[in-house]
Amino acid sequence: MATLADIGLAAAINILSAFIFFVAFAILRLQPFNDRVYFPKWYLKGLRTEPTSSGAFVRKFVNLDYRSYLRFLNWMPDALRMPEPELVEHAGLDSAVYLRIYLTGLKIFVPIAFLAWTILVPVNWTNSTLELERLSNVTSSDIDKLSISNVPLGSERFWGHVVMAYAFTFWACYVLLKEYEKVASMRLQFLASERRRPDQYTVLVRNVPPDPDESVSELVEHFFLVNHPDRYLTHQLVYNANKLAKLVKEKENLQNWLVYYKNKFSRNSSQRPSMKTGFLGLWGKRVDAIDYHESEIEKLSKEIAAERERVSNDSKCIMPAAFVSFKTRWAAAVCAQTQQSRNPTVWLTEWAPEPRDVYWQNLAIPYVSLTVRKLIIGVAFFFLTFFFMIPIAFVQSLASIEGIGKAAPFLKPLVEKEFIKSFVQGFLPGIVLKIFLIFLPTILMIMSKFEGFGSVSSLERRSASRYYLFNFVNVFLGSIITGSAFEQLDSFIHQSATDIPKTIGVAIPMKATFFITYIMVDGWAGVAGEILMLKPLIIYHLKNSFLVKTEKDREEAMDPGSLGFNTGEPRIQFYFLLGFVYATVTPAILPFIIVFFALAFVVFRHQIINVYSQQYESAAAFWPDVHGRIVTALVISQVLLLGLLSTKEAAKSTPFLVALPVLTIWFYRFCKGRYEPAFVKFPLQEAMMKDTLERAREPNLNLKGYLQNSYLHPVLKACVEDKDKEVDDGEKWETESVLVPTKRHSQRNTPAPSGVSGSSSSSSLREASDF
Amino acid sequence: MATLADIGLAAAINILSAFIFFVAFAILRLQPFNDRVYFPKWYLKGLRTEPTSSGAFVRKFVNLDYRSYLRFLNWMPDALRMPEPELVEHAGLDSAVYLRIYLTGLKIFVPIAFLAWTILVPVNWTNSTLELERLSNVTSSDIDKLSISNVPLGSERFWGHVVMAYAFTFWACYVLLKEYEKVASMRLQFLASERRRPDQYTVLVRNVPPDPDESVSELVEHFFLVNHPDRYLTHQLVYNANKLAKLVKEKENLQNWLVYYKNKFSRNSSQRPSMKTGFLGLWGKRVDAIDYHESEIEKLSKEIAAERERVSNDSKCIMPAAFVSFKTRWAAAVCAQTQQSRNPTVWLTEWAPEPRDVYWQNLAIPYVSLTVRKLIIGVAFFFLTFFFMIPIAFVQSLASIEGIGKAAPFLKPLVEKEFIKSFVQGFLPGIVLKIFLIFLPTILMIMSKFEGFGSVSSLERRSASRYYLFNFVNVFLGSIITGSAFEQLDSFIHQSATDIPKTIGVAIPMKATFFITYIMVDGWAGVAGEILMLKPLIIYHLKNSFLVKTEKDREEAMDPGSLGFNTGEPRIQFYFLLGFVYATVTPAILPFIIVFFALAFVVFRHQIINVYSQQYESAAAFWPDVHGRIVTALVISQVLLLGLLSTKEAAKSTPFLVALPVLTIWFYRFCKGRYEPAFVKFPLQEAMMKDTLERAREPNLNLKGYLQNSYLHPVLKACVEDKDKEVDDGEKWETESVLVPTKRHSQRNTPAPSGVSGSSSSSSLREASDF
Repeated sequence: MATLADIGLAAAINILSAFIFFVAFAILRLQPFNDRVYFPKWYLKGLRTEPTSSGAFVRKFVNLDYRSYLRFLNWMPDALRMPEPELVEHAGLDSAVYLRIYLTGLKIFVPIAFLAWTILVPVNWTNSTLELERLSNVTSSDIDKLSISNVPLGSERFWGHVVMAYAFTFWACYVLLKEYEKVASMRLQFLASERRRPDQYTVLVRNVPPDPDESVSELVEHFFLVNHPDRYLTHQLVYNANKLAKLVKEKENLQNWLVYYKNKFSRNSSQRPSMKTGFLGLWGKRVDAIDYHESEIEKLSKEIAAERERVSNDSKCIMPAAFVSFKTRWAAAVCAQTQQSRNPTVWLTEWAPEPRDVYWQNLAIPYVSLTVRKLIIGVAFFFLTFFFMIPIAFVQSLASIEGIGKAAPFLKPLVEKEFIKSFVQGFLPGIVLKIFLIFLPTILMIMSKFEGFGSVSSLERRSASRYYLFNFVNVFLGSIITGSAFEQLDSFIHQSATDIPKTIGVAIPMKATFFITYIMVDGWAGVAGEILMLKPLIIYHLKNSFLVKTEKDREEAMDPGSLGFNTGEPRIQFYFLLGFVYATVTPAILPFIIVFFALAFVVFRHQIINVYSQQYESAAAFWPDVHGRIVTALVISQVLLLGLLSTKEAAKSTPFLVALPVLTIWFYRFCKGRYEPAFVKFPLQEAMMKDTLERAREPNLNLKGYLQNSYLHPVLKACVEDKDKEVDDGEKWETESVLVPTKRHSQRNTPAPSGVSGSSSSSSLREASDF
Repeated sequence: MATLADIGLAAAINILSAFIFFVAFAILRLQPFNDRVYFPKWYLKGLRTEPTSSGAFVRKFVNLDYRSYLRFLNWMPDALRMPEPELVEHAGLDSAVYLRIYLTGLKIFVPIAFLAWTILVPVNWTNSTLELERLSNVTSSDIDKLSISNVPLGSERFWGHVVMAYAFTFWACYVLLKEYEKVASMRLQFLASERRRPDQYTVLVRNVPPDPDESVSELVEHFFLVNHPDRYLTHQLVYNANKLAKLVKEKENLQNWLVYYKNKFSRNSSQRPSMKTGFLGLWGKRVDAIDYHESEIEKLSKEIAAERERVSNDSKCIMPAAFVSFKTRWAAAVCAQTQQSRNPTVWLTEWAPEPRDVYWQNLAIPYVSLTVRKLIIGVAFFFLTFFFMIPIAFVQSLASIEGIGKAAPFLKPLVEKEFIKSFVQGFLPGIVLKIFLIFLPTILMIMSKFEGFGSVSSLERRSASRYYLFNFVNVFLGSIITGSAFEQLDSFIHQSATDIPKTIGVAIPMKATFFITYIMVDGWAGVAGEILMLKPLIIYHLKNSFLVKTEKDREEAMDPGSLGFNTGEPRIQFYFLLGFVYATVTPAILPFIIVFFALAFVVFRHQIINVYSQQYESAAAFWPDVHGRIVTALVISQVLLLGLLSTKEAAKSTPFLVALPVLTIWFYRFCKGRYEPAFVKFPLQEAMMKDTLERAREPNLNLKGYLQNSYLHPVLKACVEDKDKEVDDGEKWETESVLVPTKRHSQRNTPAPSGVSGSSSSSSLREASDF
């Protein structure tokens, strides 16, 4: 048990390290040569082209104005100054709503902390249980005097904790309700005020059934012309361009090297750079590097052209999926929300994600395969969560002195040196675990990708919920009840339903000091470290010195990164969990959590304004997940409190707690019914309003031209743009316009749907003649 | 433990009673005066007007043809002869699919029984565990020699049971998959081949938001004219006619009595019948019965007219809900499946149920109230399931000798007589429980009604799933582990997750003989009793002798009843549960279950063909529930087998069972995704096809006239029809036609949706001028 002094020391260390990070950040960000690392967003937006300060050559790299260093924390008010609507405009709704998670934390926990300190702390403090126990040599800290442990068994004072549990739940639910309402209305407003976007008109159709007579393109066109007459506009096929994407990436890589060698040559023109062709340039024939790369790039370009040709012509590269666009948002909303075919596993329609949000590889997975993948990943995740320690322990045993001696006897003399031996013994096992934990989000992301989601945003949401579960089992439960997850699982299976909350609940007050330290290390210092952006800083400067030739290269060398919902959100959720669990048990933990939320809010607001560039915009589609997990934390805290109190012989007050989880779960279902549709459906009223407005404003809009290439695979699109630029290359990439008329012709030949009224079929002919 | 002889005796008794029921049925059904009880469906269909046999007066009542008695079981082949498509035509899809549940039972259990008897029974039989135990005075029956109890602890033979569990699951899932596919295609075919029905064009809109300026009718019309232009046709308001319905019912009742007294007078014209006006005619002033009833009916008729006037004019009687009809099925399908408004709790749309399926009282419940009701009913059902014994025990204690003595001392001398005493002690407690169980379906139905479902079919489905749960907890678990549900709940909470299946699993083999007897009593004799229709028989003859004057009265005296999904289906499910649980444990039970399924199939097929008249047609919307519950039974059986085997020290084979529930649940989710949409959504392709066909066949169809009054409250409708008949009553009930034009006018004045193209607004004007 840590004493107050221990905690004070830990706090001092962590505050100091946070302070150091902030000072370092303040110094680094003011140097003009770091400008592109700390303000990339403004460059991307085109609002900033060069570091602001002007003057001598040195000034271009180092800021010599001493006054600017004095106000080293002034980025904080700056970060807070931008009003929310402007932030939405500037960084998108996703980022703005992401910040609201921290704000929700503050809104929930500041009043709770106030209540807890004015009511619960005196209730706990004025007992003397722990002092009596201390006489009989049971150790306890001063923190524990503030906690529920200080209340004697069977005391009437537990009524206070029960009433407070109700008050806290009520307040949390109230805040959550208001937030859900606010976010839902922000989302709807955002969607309504948005300018025209291709995904508003477009529906992603998956599982187009195979047809022996017609191609996918013909099939899609016929199906929607028949079932959505007057409304269907056009469609874009999905190509399997994975190989092409690989080739293009390879070419880019080679081009980087070419630039590197050219730079080297221009600096030292006496000697042409040379290289070896083998693995990593370590062995093989020595050749002239510039010539070699130029010829390789030439070769690849030809290969890419051939592959591009193949993709556009080979019917095997056309996936049984398509992006179908409609003439109005109303029609798209209708198509996305309805079932198309008798067989509910073909012609699956859903809202098309934003073009940049599409995860192209997964668009062609058939229905049966999807359900099988779900099963496999479900089982795999179960094993990952509960049994991940087994391979880790195996690797750790290999990484021990004896293990290395056995596995690689030739290393034996090396590892037996004193310094290396202590390193292996002291650090290696920890590092193995740490490496696993660093790669965990990637592993979870790969699992989600395998599961077959079609958009990056849904991949991230799924990974986030898995990460939360993993954290809950392995960090939260793992810290409270020591032992591996598998051992816990085993003991839980053999315990009764009432014993499990008891076991955990009893251990909770004892772990308060541990979690306080955890919050300070992970929450305070970790968040402060975030703002330094060490990794992007180093990478930028490396690239800058070796690869950058033009201004465009410098732009590409910037890596602003993004929020990383799949890792960031579960981390915040962990603090919600700690807050709720300890609010009634050890209120002393609450101020630490509040400091975390406040600090993180400021830091991430700054990052979002100046740094991060989001890959996609999902219009806060993640909020139902966030809400759900906060409610989960609430229910967990209630059950654990129930378990804890049931060991305190407070038979009168405890039963009153049973209703609390029931009411909370009901609250969750109420919110789900009330607000969730705003995040998964698109109201027709809304669509109709926007359509009407648009038709009035731009009666002659060429929507088809606008949508033409919006959902082309990014690689093919890049090719189109390349070609557009290199006008000398005569053969222009005629994306789909070659294919479509042939399809239209065949459509004219097939019998028209018998009963469709004259106007509709004439309109489809008119449409066909648009070509 | 019952011996084979005991079971043989029970079987003989039950077979005999079933036989007696069948003979009684054979005799009764051949009597012409019972014709309307045993063949009401043919009368309702108008295919039969008088008993077929003709001749002497006696022959009109009693069948004297001895030959027809000889073939007393020939209704069975008759019942089986009608092919399924004809059955669908004759009795509707609901009934035909309901029969498929029994058929599914046969398909699943006949091969399972075959496999079990050829493999498992020899495996069990060739051990001698029980014989050895019998030597040490443990009693066991011959049935147990066939069961898993006969296999020694830790035997390798348990592999056989594990493999068989996989085989049974695989077979059951295969049959379930095929059945789901078949039923889904039957449903789609039924919906496709159906003739025009109002609900195909109509959507039920609930939670119309209140508006200070416009009436509900105007609001609905404007909203759908704006958001579904070109497609909206008309709408019908929902009136709160509950009071009117009550008055009408009262009037009918009085009319029945009037007829009774008139009949009495006509038979014995010497004396006019008289009655007392007080409670049940027991006290009060003595009056002339005919005059009294005539004046009362007169009074009520006036009241009804006034109330009818009020309902149609008072805006308070108009509920915030409406049936909105569209011009095409496509448009209705779109509206039913999409979200209309930004606020997802108003303008809720769903498929309109069939007019006769609508549960009118519940149409106006607002969203928040609905979620609160769900919570209340959820909690109430929990208490009903686990604590229903508490009030019953209380009533039982009152119904004991001492209880009566205390509660009503004046009855004391009476109850202390020997005969009454033994009756009170022997029967009353059992009768109290039995009465509760008889009323249980009604209680569950009331709960579902309170919960706010809008159609009778969904009410029945919900009650069925609750009834199943209740049966599972109180009959299945209650029989296996003796003790009240509350005691079980208590012990389960205090047991570990692995112990619960163990406790139940171990008790299962011991209860096999009990359940065999249960199947014979409830399944065999009960089903045979069903066909006798004692209650309708008695009621019909009572009505026939007192109330029937005209042929129409006789028709109304028939009470064909209906299948009663809410009680019948959970009962079948119970046999599935028993079958799966005992298939691997005591295969001897399987033949009894097969006999039940076969017998019930024949009996209910006969009833469906000749007797039952369904209240509504939901097109087999219940199948997902049926499927889900069979899968649940499968999973329960696997978990219990796992529990049982884990006590048998078969450590090698048991772990292989763990994958089985996981796979089964995955199978359930696969089926849910694959087939369930066919039961809750309506594919646009289908709708478009029917629309196109209809437009080609009947280009001049007056759809509006067809839909005019289809969704009028049945009471108001009856009034309309009454008025139509009584042409002398000048004032014709002008349902809505008075209201609509005024609304239309106001619509003309409101600005048209700005961007709607000319054609659409002109069509809505054209529509308005239809009036």
